[in-house]
Amino acid sequence: MRVEVRFTVPEAEVGDLAGATVVVVDVIRATTTMATALANGARAVYPVASSEEAIRLAQSLGREDTLLCGERRGLRIEGYDLGNSPAEYTREVVEGKRLVMNTTNGTRAFLATEAAARVVAGAFTNLGAVAETVAGAEHLVVVCAGREDVFALEDALMAGKLLQRLDGAGVELELDDGARAALELARAFQVTPQVLASTGAGQLLLEAELGEDLTRCARVDACPVVPVMEDRGLTLMNAPEA
Amino acid sequence: MRVEVRFTVPEAEVGDLAGATVVVVDVIRATTTMATALANGARAVYPVASSEEAIRLAQSLGREDTLLCGERRGLRIEGYDLGNSPAEYTREVVEGKRLVMNTTNGTRAFLATEAAARVVAGAFTNLGAVAETVAGAEHLVVVCAGREDVFALEDALMAGKLLQRLDGAGVELELDDGARAALELARAFQVTPQVLASTGAGQLLLEAELGEDLTRCARVDACPVVPVMEDRGLTLMNAPEA
Repeated sequence: MRVEVRFTVPEAEVGDLAGATVVVVDVIRATTTMATALANGARAVYPVASSEEAIRLAQSLGREDTLLCGERRGLRIEGYDLGNSPAEYTREVVEGKRLVMNTTNGTRAFLATEAAARVVAGAFTNLGAVAETVAGAEHLVVVCAGREDVFALEDALMAGKLLQRLDGAGVELELDDGARAALELARAFQVTPQVLASTGAGQLLLEAELGEDLTRCARVDACPVVPVMEDRGLTLMNAPEA
Repeated sequence: MRVEVRFTVPEAEVGDLAGATVVVVDVIRATTTMATALANGARAVYPVASSEEAIRLAQSLGREDTLLCGERRGLRIEGYDLGNSPAEYTREVVEGKRLVMNTTNGTRAFLATEAAARVVAGAFTNLGAVAETVAGAEHLVVVCAGREDVFALEDALMAGKLLQRLDGAGVELELDDGARAALELARAFQVTPQVLASTGAGQLLLEAELGEDLTRCARVDACPVVPVMEDRGLTLMNAPEA
């Protein structure tokens, strides 16, 4: 398997993703939250890049079945139904709903992957499920959302842990520079709330008094589902039509 | 010292470099070659972003004293005096000359640093000299040139080795996510021609039969000079006016 890791959205936009299997990673918190939402019965999650687009899409989907979700600088956008904390996405709240999700970095990462053959959402919470899903790919690209177009340690760490899982499963890996770096980070750091708290994104969450989310984001394999991008929305693999 | 490491030029363009001390790193080969050229008596090196600009600047500097230098995909640009191999920049060739240097990634990295208080060129060959020069900075930003706007392992490794030197000299470091990652890479990899050969940029040089340059780029502290950006050109620190 040929493996590339891109640490920011602009890096993903440079490369040729045609035909690739892509894992989009935004551990704190978009992809963690997406997996939680779909595991708790949401019909689909639609990542969007702006508030205008979010409102337009929510209207076209039908407002009563649809929740507007999103954050700016960690906090729920005014007038939205939900922020971006996985804790908000309980079964009571999201079951049967379509979620239009407007997040800072994660959404742009998904939008950069149009040419890919398959796009899934990866987080520590669904690490093993994602590794199984992509294990047969010939060309894997991990697209880290990063933070405001700058390297984010937690996403790079997730990329490295994914490669460790694939390696552990006997997949032969041909690594590019980014993938080699990610793998070294996976050797150096454990996935713990403390490590996540030490990152730039983690520090911002702590300042916003959302530190408990770091514990949720660090629960490796706690939510073994695989959100897959189809048209413009993410649904669970093999789930019935949304 | 507050330390940030940016792994690509677009990452550097996002950040606020105002007042910062910046080390631009393009180990294979631009910054290695710049240090070599200045150590061998070149009066100044002017990084430029295009062939048009290179020719215009060479004409305005006076063509007889000026050498046109640059590469595309590792090879000398047609009609230029020199390519980008440090081996070409001998004292016989460059002494007393002004060099207009048009390179793929390194030049763009320099152009992204306009707001910085001080900009120097770093490579393994001048690692210790650069570390001494920047040791007193309050805010250090290492700008890796990367490869076509994508992460390059050798530049990240150089950033990490620089931080190790600063740490070893007792400088207290406050690291951002990128700096922490770079430091882990410095712990994982030695600076050897073999490690450089294993990178994406190294592979391209090998394919172009320029593998000997990797040995030159891996000579830690072999060329203890510090190229400093002043106006649009790099000169040696404390060197007489070019």
